[in-house]
Formats: sequence, structure tokens, C-alpha cells
Amino acid sequence: MEEIEVIEGGITSPKGFKAAGVHSGIKKCKKDLALIYTEKKANAAAVFTTNKVKAAPVLLDMENIRKSEAQAIVVNSGNANACTGEKGYEDALKMAEKTAEMLKIDKNDVLVCSTGVIGVPLPIDFCLKGIESAAESLSEKGGDDAAEAIMTTDTFKKVIAVKFNIDGKTVKMGGMAKGSGMIHPNMATMLSFITTDANISKEALNKALKKSVDVSYNTISVDGDMSTNDTNIILANGMAENKLIEVNSKEFEIFYRAIEYVNKNLAKMIVKDGEGATKFIEVVVINAKTENDARLAAKSIINSNLVKTAIFGEDANWGRIITAAGYSGADFDPQNVSIFIKSSKGEIKVCENGGYVNFDEGLAKEILKEKEINIMIDLKSGEFSSTAWGCDLSYDYVKINGSYRT
Amino acid sequence: MEEIEVIEGGITSPKGFKAAGVHSGIKKCKKDLALIYTEKKANAAAVFTTNKVKAAPVLLDMENIRKSEAQAIVVNSGNANACTGEKGYEDALKMAEKTAEMLKIDKNDVLVCSTGVIGVPLPIDFCLKGIESAAESLSEKGGDDAAEAIMTTDTFKKVIAVKFNIDGKTVKMGGMAKGSGMIHPNMATMLSFITTDANISKEALNKALKKSVDVSYNTISVDGDMSTNDTNIILANGMAENKLIEVNSKEFEIFYRAIEYVNKNLAKMIVKDGEGATKFIEVVVINAKTENDARLAAKSIINSNLVKTAIFGEDANWGRIITAAGYSGADFDPQNVSIFIKSSKGEIKVCENGGYVNFDEGLAKEILKEKEINIMIDLKSGEFSSTAWGCDLSYDYVKINGSYRT
Repeated sequence: MEEIEVIEGGITSPKGFKAAGVHSGIKKCKKDLALIYTEKKANAAAVFTTNKVKAAPVLLDMENIRKSEAQAIVVNSGNANACTGEKGYEDALKMAEKTAEMLKIDKNDVLVCSTGVIGVPLPIDFCLKGIESAAESLSEKGGDDAAEAIMTTDTFKKVIAVKFNIDGKTVKMGGMAKGSGMIHPNMATMLSFITTDANISKEALNKALKKSVDVSYNTISVDGDMSTNDTNIILANGMAENKLIEVNSKEFEIFYRAIEYVNKNLAKMIVKDGEGATKFIEVVVINAKTENDARLAAKSIINSNLVKTAIFGEDANWGRIITAAGYSGADFDPQNVSIFIKSSKGEIKVCENGGYVNFDEGLAKEILKEKEINIMIDLKSGEFSSTAWGCDLSYDYVKINGSYRT
Repeated sequence: MEEIEVIEGGITSPKGFKAAGVHSGIKKCKKDLALIYTEKKANAAAVFTTNKVKAAPVLLDMENIRKSEAQAIVVNSGNANACTGEKGYEDALKMAEKTAEMLKIDKNDVLVCSTGVIGVPLPIDFCLKGIESAAESLSEKGGDDAAEAIMTTDTFKKVIAVKFNIDGKTVKMGGMAKGSGMIHPNMATMLSFITTDANISKEALNKALKKSVDVSYNTISVDGDMSTNDTNIILANGMAENKLIEVNSKEFEIFYRAIEYVNKNLAKMIVKDGEGATKFIEVVVINAKTENDARLAAKSIINSNLVKTAIFGEDANWGRIITAAGYSGADFDPQNVSIFIKSSKGEIKVCENGGYVNFDEGLAKEILKEKEINIMIDLKSGEFSSTAWGCDLSYDYVKINGSYRT
């Protein structure tokens, strides 16, 4: 990773980007409206939830993203504007129009996102007032406020920025995201925004985003539920003035490594901030017959409530791990399976040839006391591997979701 | 249901069946070994877990059930004999052999089941001694002891018996089952045994069992995990001396209604006794485009951790319900969806045309305070419907599974 250097900052680190985060009144007192603006219209790409039930802003964005260009993103938290019918769509449109009016840009160049409670009409007047004040306070230092304004049950801001070189030019990329319940493979109440001053073709931008989402957000799980609002958007305004990055070039590879790095790190932050999470779990499936088998097994293990509660209970219960692989649909011979559990405190083999192996229970306890746990399952059926990230299932998950409307 | 009459009793209610439940030493002090015996060899049918990782007794039974006949079932709890390699298979075989020896029957006529901790060698000596003492205490009154001996984290015995008429002859059917974690559509740590003195062909018996499992055990969910040991066995010894029941006859229909009634009731008991469950949830999807769409949507809703925690929290959060239907893979137009929540306290519509509808929050609270909650989702896309049963997700689920090795 020598070419990709992590720097201070976030979405306003790349040239030409401004942002703001304000309190509009949707939430009682916390910031709830974020605005991202690029002074030069950007190439844009986006990935949305695959849920049949899509929130109004997602439906609007799917229209607006067709031309692969955008100049602003407006986001409210506190209300998802989902299951809100035609009125919801009109409200999303109003948010775009107001943003365009304030920034003197085309309303079709505005992307809209919402996150929060489902099925409650959006308090549009608060939103519109919020857009006014956000537009007025746009600044190159507004990245942090914006990252704060998109939070719902998140307990910390998720921001990152990197720089790298393309043909002697310094290119920057910034990102911010929010979780934190309902997180699941295939994008789930998860908003993520990436900005870059790279000069990159629409095709290359789209390819890089989709590929990186597949190995980052689509591998994570908090509770296996998938939301109506998931959106991942990248804006590339070209102001770094590097030679245009096209697909299948050496430069594309560098750019891809950067976006993969940014998205993987944001995805991990989301998992670490999963509702009620006390531990971060990485599941690595190796030597699967096909890539799909590897992915099925990894996702099944990371999604298993019994694996999640075992890790919460600091219990090396490999039976639940092999069982979850067994019902995943992945093809393998259980008799060949080995399972390893590790953390910074060491590594133990807990299962060999699909069966019991003597291991040091004391060391297992030590290993499982850590906050970051790695589970490796060797299927010995082929050459493919897959990684999935998740968190444990705790009392607090039940508490948060049993008493709080998301 | 006038033809099917519920009677006192369980697996020893039908003619010619004896049972026993004893303490063998696998568990510290509770009963842990059950034996079911029919004096006349019975036609037999079975359904097993579809998990790739199958416990040793399941592998043995899959062999023994091929001839569709059996005379005894031996079951231990406290150890699943799963992920125990060749030794595990040999141990399962030893259990069959010992049972056959004690009962003076063919070892291939013995079916073996285990439930409990995975990946720990079976304490076979305890098992064999337990089989001896169970065989010695076999009795027509032993059904309750057997039902107790198969329990793991179950908090109550699950037994049922019915009688019905076939051609003027009284036929009886008894059943017992155990849950209670890891319960999931497609059979999951769930053992269920049905006995009947019906005279029924092997083909008819097999068909009735499979069909009834599909609409009972395969529709329930506690935590979405699926075990290595699930087994559902029925023995029919013909001692009621009714005219042989063949498929597609009027008599078959009566027999089928009985087995469906028994299996549905046992399945509901399993759900009600789900680990940590405080509420029983019934999800009914109506007017789906296809049967598969109905089933996908129902299962997805009943499996959703967010729906489960909302019900635990007595929150009419229909957004989570429509969202779970949305990611189920079922085909429907979200704009058409209506959702109703009801209990013995009343019924409310909480969603109309995929959106918010004004409802009485006070009444909603009253309805959701009850122990049995019904969620109905009308997809308005066709004529098919499906029902799924599950339970809520509570602090206790996390407690039980975070500190207890199953």
C-alpha cells in the first residue's frame, strides 16, 4: 500500500469540495442535514440498495445518476423518507430543487439521501430551512460537520482521507459513512459518500465503485437486515488535473486500490459501530471450490446469531461455525474442514478434519477476550477465498432495537 | 377438524408402542436417554436436516431408513455426536447394536438420534448403560419420561396425541418433540417423533410426513440457524387394523389431516419455547404472486432480527416488516402493500399502499402487549398465501447463547 497515504481530513480534502452539517429540526437537537458540493461538476457513480422497497430519494437518485454526473449531495438524517408514497417522492424532489436553487446549479445535478425512521412523512419544511442554512455555511472545513449530520444510532463519525499519485499529480480521495443497525451484505442502512479530485472517466469511476463495494460493504453484517435507503455515491471532479484515468490502465489500478482502501476502512468502521457491538469479527474462508462457495460460507458464518452470541460470550464454539458453513449452500466436505480462531493474543486450531481437536482452553479464553477476533475456516476443497466482517450480538443490540424506532 | 380428536397422552398412546426415558450420565442429573419401541415392526419414514454437516446418527439413519421400516428409536440428549468423525459413526452404530441386543430385534431396525453439544466425543459408555436401563423400563406409560429425556434447553415437554376414525376403526397418533435454539425453516435442532397404529403403506406414510413437515417445521424460526441433527421420524405399526391407507384415497386425506395437526402443534410448541422467547409471532402473507413469493416473504419477516426485536419491544414498527419483505426476493409492488397487526386485544391496519396510515397508538400498544402476535401482510399481487411462525429476540436469547454451549 505504499502508493496510498492516509491523510487527515475527509470529504473536503480533495480540491474543490465543500461541505456543511447543520441542525434543521428533524431531530430534536443534533445535526441532521448534510450538504456536499463540488465547485466543478463531477463525474458520478452510485450503488443503491437492492431491496424491493426503495426509499423516495433512492428512486430519485436512480433517475439523476443516469447521466453519471452530479454537483451536490444533500442528506438528511432522522427520517428515511421511505414508504412515504408520492408525497415522499415530491419531498425528495423539493430537497433537490431547494439545493439547486441555493447553489445555483441544475436540480438534476443534485443527489438526495435520507436515513432514519421509515414510514413517517418527511418534515419537509425543516429540511428546506436546513438546506438554506447548510448552503450558507458550506466550507472546505465542513467535512466533519457533514459526517456528524448523517449519523443516526452511530456512536462515532466515520471519516477517512487518502492521497496518491497519478502521473506525477497528487490526487486526493475523502470519504464519510454512517451505519449502524440493519447492516448486511448487499448494502444495508448504510450511507457512504466518497469525493475525489481525480480526473477519471465515467466508465472507470463506475467500475471502480462497484468492484470496491463488492469487497467492502457487501461483505459486512450487523444483523442480517437490509434497508430501504442504502446508497454509496462517489463524485470525481477532475480538479487534480491528472491525465484522464481510463479502465484497464495502470492508473486505474492505483485509483482502484485507493477506493478499495477507503471503502474497506469505512465498512470496518461501520461494523465496529454496529448497534450494541462489543467485538469486531473477521471471517476468512480459504480453499473453497469456487468464489461463490467461499462467499456463501463466509456470509453465513458472519450472519449466524449463534456464532455472534458465542463470540459475545467469548466461547470457542466451533460447532456453530462449521454448522453455519454447512447450511450456507457452499459445497464442501465437512470431514476436511479445519477452523482457527485468532486475535492479538495468539492463534488456536479448534477443529481439524471436521472434528474435535485438543486445544488450550485457557489460551482460547485469552484470545477471545480481545475486541478483534479472526475466524479462519479452511474448506480444503479448492483455491478460492473470501472475507466477511461482522460484529457480535449483545444485550445492547436487543435493547437498542427493542425500544428505538429506526 | 371434527374427525381429529385430541386425547391425553403422547407417543405411547397408539397400540403396541412402549417408551422409556432415563438418566444415563451424559447430563449431570437430568434424564438424557429415551427409547421408543413398537412390538410389531413398523413402516417408517423420516426427514433429516439439509445441513451439509450432518451428525453421525443422521448418517446412520439415512442408511437404515432406506427400507422404510423400523422397530425402535433410541435418542440421547446432552451430546449431539456431530463433528465427531469416524468414532462418532461407530458410536452411533454401537447405540443401535446395543438397542437391538436388548430388544432382540435387528440392529438395522433401530434409528438413532442425538442432540446437544457439537464436536465433543459421545460418552458412549454412559449411553450404552442408559440403553440397558431404558430397555428394562420400557412401558406403555413411558411416553412422558421419553419426552423429558430428549429435552436440551427446552423449558417444557412437547407432547400431543390424537385419535381419528378410518373405516370404522379407531386410529391413534402420538408425538413428541424438542427445540429450542437454532430453530429455522428447513429443519433445525429439532427432533420430532410420531407414532401411530395406523395401517398405512410406506409410500403414503412418506408422502404424508414430507408434506406435513413442509407446512409445520419448515415454516418456523427461532434464530435462523440450522442444525446438524434435525430429524423427524414417524413409525406406523398397523395395529389399529384399519384397511391399508394408500395415497390419494379418502382415508389418506384423514390421515394427512391428523399428521399435519400433530406436526403443526409440535412446531408451535417449539417456537413458543424458543430460547429466551417472550412472544409467539405468526406471520401470514396473503395475495402473493406465487406460492414461493409468499413463502419467501413470510420467512424473511419471521427471520428478521429487527422485526423480532421490535415485537419484543412491543413496537408496531411496520417499516421493518415491509423492509424484510422487500429484501426477501419475493416479487411484489411495495406501493400495494397493506400490513395488519393483531392479537386477542384487537386488530389494526398499520400500513396501507406501502405507506403510513393513521392508527390508534394506544390500541397498538394494547395489542402488542399480548403473548401471541399475528402479523398479516397483503401483497395484492396474486392469490397465494403462506404462514410462518417464530418468536421474538430477547435479552435472554443472548444470555442463553452467549454463555451456554449447545
